[in-house]
Amino acid sequence: MTKRILLLHGPNLNLLGIREPEVYGRTTLAEVNGAVERHLAAFDVELWIAQSNHEGELIDLLQEARESADGVVFNPGGYTHTSIALRDTIAAIALPVIETHFSNIYARESFRHHSLLAGACAGQVAGFGVNSYILAVDALLRTWELLPD
Amino acid sequence: MTKRILLLHGPNLNLLGIREPEVYGRTTLAEVNGAVERHLAAFDVELWIAQSNHEGELIDLLQEARESADGVVFNPGGYTHTSIALRDTIAAIALPVIETHFSNIYARESFRHHSLLAGACAGQVAGFGVNSYILAVDALLRTWELLPD
Amino acid sequence: MTKRILLLHGPNLNLLGIREPEVYGRTTLAEVNGAVERHLAAFDVELWIAQSNHEGELIDLLQEARESADGVVFNPGGYTHTSIALRDTIAAIALPVIETHFSNIYARESFRHHSLLAGACAGQVAGFGVNSYILAVDALLRTWELLPD
Amino acid sequence: MTKRILLLHGPNLNLLGIREPEVYGRTTLAEVNGAVERHLAAFDVELWIAQSNHEGELIDLLQEARESADGVVFNPGGYTHTSIALRDTIAAIALPVIETHFSNIYARESFRHHSLLAGACAGQVAGFGVNSYILAVDALLRTWELLPD
Amino acid sequence: MTKRILLLHGPNLNLLGIREPEVYGRTTLAEVNGAVERHLAAFDVELWIAQSNHEGELIDLLQEARESADGVVFNPGGYTHTSIALRDTIAAIALPVIETHFSNIYARESFRHHSLLAGACAGQVAGFGVNSYILAVDALLRTWELLPD
Amino acid sequence: MTKRILLLHGPNLNLLGIREPEVYGRTTLAEVNGAVERHLAAFDVELWIAQSNHEGELIDLLQEARESADGVVFNPGGYTHTSIALRDTIAAIALPVIETHFSNIYARESFRHHSLLAGACAGQVAGFGVNSYILAVDALLRTWELLPD
Amino acid sequence: MTKRILLLHGPNLNLLGIREPEVYGRTTLAEVNGAVERHLAAFDVELWIAQSNHEGELIDLLQEARESADGVVFNPGGYTHTSIALRDTIAAIALPVIETHFSNIYARESFRHHSLLAGACAGQVAGFGVNSYILAVDALLRTWELLPD
Amino acid sequence: MTKRILLLHGPNLNLLGIREPEVYGRTTLAEVNGAVERHLAAFDVELWIAQSNHEGELIDLLQEARESADGVVFNPGGYTHTSIALRDTIAAIALPVIETHFSNIYARESFRHHSLLAGACAGQVAGFGVNSYILAVDALLRTWELLPD
Amino acid sequence: MTKRILLLHGPNLNLLGIREPEVYGRTTLAEVNGAVERHLAAFDVELWIAQSNHEGELIDLLQEARESADGVVFNPGGYTHTSIALRDTIAAIALPVIETHFSNIYARESFRHHSLLAGACAGQVAGFGVNSYILAVDALLRTWELLPD
Amino acid sequence: MTKRILLLHGPNLNLLGIREPEVYGRTTLAEVNGAVERHLAAFDVELWIAQSNHEGELIDLLQEARESADGVVFNPGGYTHTSIALRDTIAAIALPVIETHFSNIYARESFRHHSLLAGACAGQVAGFGVNSYILAVDALLRTWELLPD
Amino acid sequence: MTKRILLLHGPNLNLLGIREPEVYGRTTLAEVNGAVERHLAAFDVELWIAQSNHEGELIDLLQEARESADGVVFNPGGYTHTSIALRDTIAAIALPVIETHFSNIYARESFRHHSLLAGACAGQVAGFGVNSYILAVDALLRTWELLPD
Amino acid sequence: MTKRILLLHGPNLNLLGIREPEVYGRTTLAEVNGAVERHLAAFDVELWIAQSNHEGELIDLLQEARESADGVVFNPGGYTHTSIALRDTIAAIALPVIETHFSNIYARESFRHHSLLAGACAGQVAGFGVNSYILAVDALLRTWELLPD
Repeated sequence: MTKRILLLHGPNLNLLGIREPEVYGRTTLAEVNGAVERHLAAFDVELWIAQSNHEGELIDLLQEARESADGVVFNPGGYTHTSIALRDTIAAIALPVIETHFSNIYARESFRHHSLLAGACAGQVAGFGVNSYILAVDALLRTWELLPD
Repeated sequence: MTKRILLLHGPNLNLLGIREPEVYGRTTLAEVNGAVERHLAAFDVELWIAQSNHEGELIDLLQEARESADGVVFNPGGYTHTSIALRDTIAAIALPVIETHFSNIYARESFRHHSLLAGACAGQVAGFGVNSYILAVDALLRTWELLPD
Repeated sequence: MTKRILLLHGPNLNLLGIREPEVYGRTTLAEVNGAVERHLAAFDVELWIAQSNHEGELIDLLQEARESADGVVFNPGGYTHTSIALRDTIAAIALPVIETHFSNIYARESFRHHSLLAGACAGQVAGFGVNSYILAVDALLRTWELLPD
Repeated sequence: MTKRILLLHGPNLNLLGIREPEVYGRTTLAEVNGAVERHLAAFDVELWIAQSNHEGELIDLLQEARESADGVVFNPGGYTHTSIALRDTIAAIALPVIETHFSNIYARESFRHHSLLAGACAGQVAGFGVNSYILAVDALLRTWELLPD
Repeated sequence: MTKRILLLHGPNLNLLGIREPEVYGRTTLAEVNGAVERHLAAFDVELWIAQSNHEGELIDLLQEARESADGVVFNPGGYTHTSIALRDTIAAIALPVIETHFSNIYARESFRHHSLLAGACAGQVAGFGVNSYILAVDALLRTWELLPD
Repeated sequence: MTKRILLLHGPNLNLLGIREPEVYGRTTLAEVNGAVERHLAAFDVELWIAQSNHEGELIDLLQEARESADGVVFNPGGYTHTSIALRDTIAAIALPVIETHFSNIYARESFRHHSLLAGACAGQVAGFGVNSYILAVDALLRTWELLPD
Repeated sequence: MTKRILLLHGPNLNLLGIREPEVYGRTTLAEVNGAVERHLAAFDVELWIAQSNHEGELIDLLQEARESADGVVFNPGGYTHTSIALRDTIAAIALPVIETHFSNIYARESFRHHSLLAGACAGQVAGFGVNSYILAVDALLRTWELLPD
Repeated sequence: MTKRILLLHGPNLNLLGIREPEVYGRTTLAEVNGAVERHLAAFDVELWIAQSNHEGELIDLLQEARESADGVVFNPGGYTHTSIALRDTIAAIALPVIETHFSNIYARESFRHHSLLAGACAGQVAGFGVNSYILAVDALLRTWELLPD
Repeated sequence: MTKRILLLHGPNLNLLGIREPEVYGRTTLAEVNGAVERHLAAFDVELWIAQSNHEGELIDLLQEARESADGVVFNPGGYTHTSIALRDTIAAIALPVIETHFSNIYARESFRHHSLLAGACAGQVAGFGVNSYILAVDALLRTWELLPD
Repeated sequence: MTKRILLLHGPNLNLLGIREPEVYGRTTLAEVNGAVERHLAAFDVELWIAQSNHEGELIDLLQEARESADGVVFNPGGYTHTSIALRDTIAAIALPVIETHFSNIYARESFRHHSLLAGACAGQVAGFGVNSYILAVDALLRTWELLPD
Repeated sequence: MTKRILLLHGPNLNLLGIREPEVYGRTTLAEVNGAVERHLAAFDVELWIAQSNHEGELIDLLQEARESADGVVFNPGGYTHTSIALRDTIAAIALPVIETHFSNIYARESFRHHSLLAGACAGQVAGFGVNSYILAVDALLRTWELLPD
Repeated sequence: MTKRILLLHGPNLNLLGIREPEVYGRTTLAEVNGAVERHLAAFDVELWIAQSNHEGELIDLLQEARESADGVVFNPGGYTHTSIALRDTIAAIALPVIETHFSNIYARESFRHHSLLAGACAGQVAGFGVNSYILAVDALLRTWELLPD
């Protein structure tokens, strides 16, 4: 049966490639989305992409995914470190959610070292730029045994 | 004169009864609202019910309550522990706001033990499931002397 | 069957109404007890009232309640924040114990913000003066379904 | 060339002059905006004013400013102390953003002493009531050398 | 009018002069009490002396002093650092209470450096052995203007 | 010469075997005492057993032991983590006091990981249920060379 | 009536323009003083300028200002973060003191993020280089209504 | 050119599949190694596998990798949280090292939430059981552009 | 033999009676000095009085006292909480130094609760206004046995 | 059936009796081992003794014990407070491990007060010198019911 | 060219040899200075010696050294742990400054373990008594290559 | 009599000159050892050089030094901040051990600012690159009076 993935981008990720390129590189969000789409072309998987700067809207989208998706790849941006509400949502929707980060959050300011969300997620992939997303999608594919060992 | 209560539900409470029932029980939000409505039937009190996953929307609603309600029963969900903005709103609107929780927050993870909002609220009721709401409403009724001792 | 409630007052509560009235109001402990008695008049509930300044005596009384009462409304006063022994007793006696406070402990000195006992209690009611006790008693009545919704 | 300033007000500032006047004074937000407008009358500067209680909306507005404004005067209200997402936005948009506060945040509760945003801002002005805004605007004018020494 | 002082000794002080003499010296409690009595002989002051190892009993005695004494000299021993209940009592009884210590608590283990009671006391005298008591009594005499400058 | 041991049980230990058997097992305090008595039958040692929920009474008993016993086996229960007064008593009486715990306090809540008393005791034995007491008694017997190597 | 401002420079500011120019820029202290003087030329304000590396001398100068000045612009340099004595002086002299910093202290080492003095000052201006001083002087002018809105 | 990967397993990982299967599952280390080998079969990549319980030996192996490998997939086990020496080695060898964990370390005891090594690694993959290793290897393949987007 | 006391006043104490009278009362430093002089009139004790706002000068004076005085009554003002250098001096000069405070430092801001100097002093007297000095002088007199018990 | 005990000594214990005898006494490790051997002579228990200064070697030995021993008496020395890897090993091998210390670790420097290993051990015995080992062995014997009550 | 060294002694070092000889030994400051002088006799190096108890004076001297010396050997005494102003001076003057201590600061009270100045110094030498100074001077000589390897 | 020095290098120091040259410079370990050897050529001192990445091996070497050397120059590398076991060894062997660091550990990451070993060492020399070793050796020579003042 066709699987459906929500690829969810948090605050400021719409500026990817434009914002602080020395930290985040020059890949735009459209290019990230395109790379994920191409990577999924060979699989029976539908991709649903969304971005929002609003904590509440991200909660709404995750709740919606509860009924219409089978897994989530989520880059929560700055909310990673401050949102217990998002953590509660992830725990509530009972879907595998993979937390994803472009850069190595441990190599940056100390207030970015701790993820409030991670304890409720299935796993984390961080530090590989656009490949973080590819690897996170692979994590879902492997969970569903759509990828061989 | 008729009193008006805002019964305000924060993030993820729309999933009540569905989400993690081993923690939050099987009562749905509609059933909570119905129980509060039935409990208020005998009083000259109007009930205004709202839920939002958005911190900003909750602020808007509380500010609106400042002009159109006389008291608030508020379960702030995950924002309990992280929102100084909501605390400022509660202090600003000068209404009695009763902080309410379904479960005993002290018997859960340590990052849920501290409430940033409580210092600005009139009081707290926590740990009694749906009865937390009934008791919080009673706290307002007693404040207004609509309930005898 | 008749239920029996232990209404237990901790250290310094015998001075209620006399001690720092600007913080605790002018209601005396006798008046609090009277209000609870009147409130319970219509129910098949027996009330057992005790006060002590001694941590050990409070432990003895709670242990005694284990055999002769069905629920406890307990204002632990200054022991709220320092007594692991009382927490152990509450966990040991396997009765519903409702932690109750006259004032909003979050609006006072920071060493009063944390309750060591709360994790072992059924719930908390705080900040409503004498009504904190009425609401805590109601919480027990609702637990026993002696109060309709 | 005409410069454009975004004057951005965060949560609860729409209640200015009404909310807790003993802390924030009796000047309304309209009066603040008027004062800034009058102050700018002599300069070739366009003023764009916005207020929102929503963290996400404030992020959207700052991102919009990236393309349509030359500088920002921003009072982040309660989000000052909790929003890494807003900090990321400020870093991302590469405009001079002046953090502004009505009151002296150091003379209030300790959870208000630290600004998560300040490290990404060009500077701060705090403690002068409505003049904080005037001084912050001057800071931009001086940056652009529209004000002589 | 005759003044009445409660000279109150906390836990383990009955072992004074016997217990760890290298820390506390060889003066017994009886000798301390005798020295205070002799010192007060010339004044119209009645001395009431008590010692207890029980936190609750110390609370009872302080509450009793509220009605029958005009001031208290109190060495709370080990309860100095752990008892919020005693602090509440001192605040409640509205008498001048002078906290007194035999030894210099700052020159001992770090868990003895902080006094939970001091904020509610009128003042502290510490580090002078038996003279700590004499000086604390003088502090009361001066408060009552029974001692000239 | 006959040795005398005080076997002292702190708060809530009178409920042993009844209270939370999944944590503390089903052995009652009488059975613990009986096991210790049987274990001592072959030695010229007198056993003095006491239990109290009162911190002050425990201090009194330890002080009494100073004159009438030669060693103490002490399970301080919840006072382990909060009582500087008991620590002072142990230091004052100059007897070998063995701190004993039924369960492994390190495998429980973090507020139980630190013992305020341990620094003044001769040693600790913890985690072996009723055998903790037998081993603690053996520790005294070995100190007195009543047990061979 | 002529107003008098003390422009007070703390430790190491005599090296301004010479010391670590990549942090503090190349403007010398003489140039800062000149800019302030020119800025005040149009006002009926007398300027009194002083610099010292000595904490005690800065206290003496502020105390002297109590009688001979109407307001103070003060850059306390490294004493900002360590001097309670200076804070006490500022509180004692009952003049408006504006704390001023050349650089954005929030963007530097964490031991520079907290100002012990700020709680006693009227306000802070930081991060604008020489303009911090101009803006701080304006803050005083506005307090005295020598500057229009 | 053939790439060479060091797959390095830290302390206790030799017990994988045997040790605490409710935490770590029933996959043995041999099966993990086999899965990685199969996954790499299609690529021109040589796999070098090692396990040690010795911190010093792990340092030796990483230093050896500096000359004989092109990348490292490293599960440091319990040394993750305590070894600055291993962090220094990772920084010293200037190879991409991917930190890998079987389980989600954020969902376990708090002393496992912080990684001392992560700041020196290229990235982290955690929480996917055996797939953590597959994904970490893919991270290296993508770094070397042996995997298409 | 005549004893010599240095009565040393720290920063801002020259403003006593003028500065914040609601905190420090209206007694001037001259009146404090006069009271101490009158109190010493009957004894064979010479009084040497000094005040300085300079930490270094206070160190110089204490060092001078090492050769020319027999004891010190010292109110270190704001240096109480920040000066390790003064602590070292007190330890170095090997004279009895009595730390004295006008007000109860424990009832004020938390950064005043800890004294860095106290560990090196002979004792403390605080909270009795001018009488703090009288009592501190008495402490020296009793040390020298110039006052009977 | 014959039981086998691993008696495992951690870093620096080979210097016992030589190293800092004022802290650790003059008993050598050989004498400790001899005392344990003599104590076990009457039981059907085989003793396996090992010492290492290497964290990794201790892990290897404990893992080896998993297959060839029935219980462990372990003095982890300085690794007690720093090794999560050893804690993991103890949890992994599923044998009763008794943590043993020569001296009372609570009576030494504060960095020795907390044991990272204790939470995974069956129990602790500390403070009785060579008898700590005898008692720890007895704890195993009692677990196996080779010792009567 | 002749080099010039400032040998700078901080507060209380003028009492060296007299003050607490059990901590600091019996060598006087004059003897320290003499030893350094003799050690430098063979080199083309001029020695400038100063001591002050005043933080501000030490700043003045270091600033003066900026123009008239080539390196500094500095024992900051008690200011080591509290002076950000001195740290700023050291950073400002851009000379090699060697922090020197007579005793091993790590073997003393914990408030002496951290040096606020060290981060701005070239290096530290501590724990060798008078030889600390000789070695620190050698560090400068080696920096200037006046000493062979 | 000939003295023998153990020059001991901890983890990763074998990579000196190769590893992160921008932090540690380009001098290799062989060159450091050569410089020390040349420096000692004129003295009757034997040099024993060792390096290990293993904490346990370093302990073994230090224990061996106890019998075959007279002093130790030790750069513990990353173990400086984490090893209580090494601290115990240094305390146990009763030789003068000089802690040495290439770079100024205070100018690096905060987790490198504290040395667990320093309290047991004779002294520290840090921040002078290869000269740190020369100066540390001189410290031993001076201890043995092989170097004149």
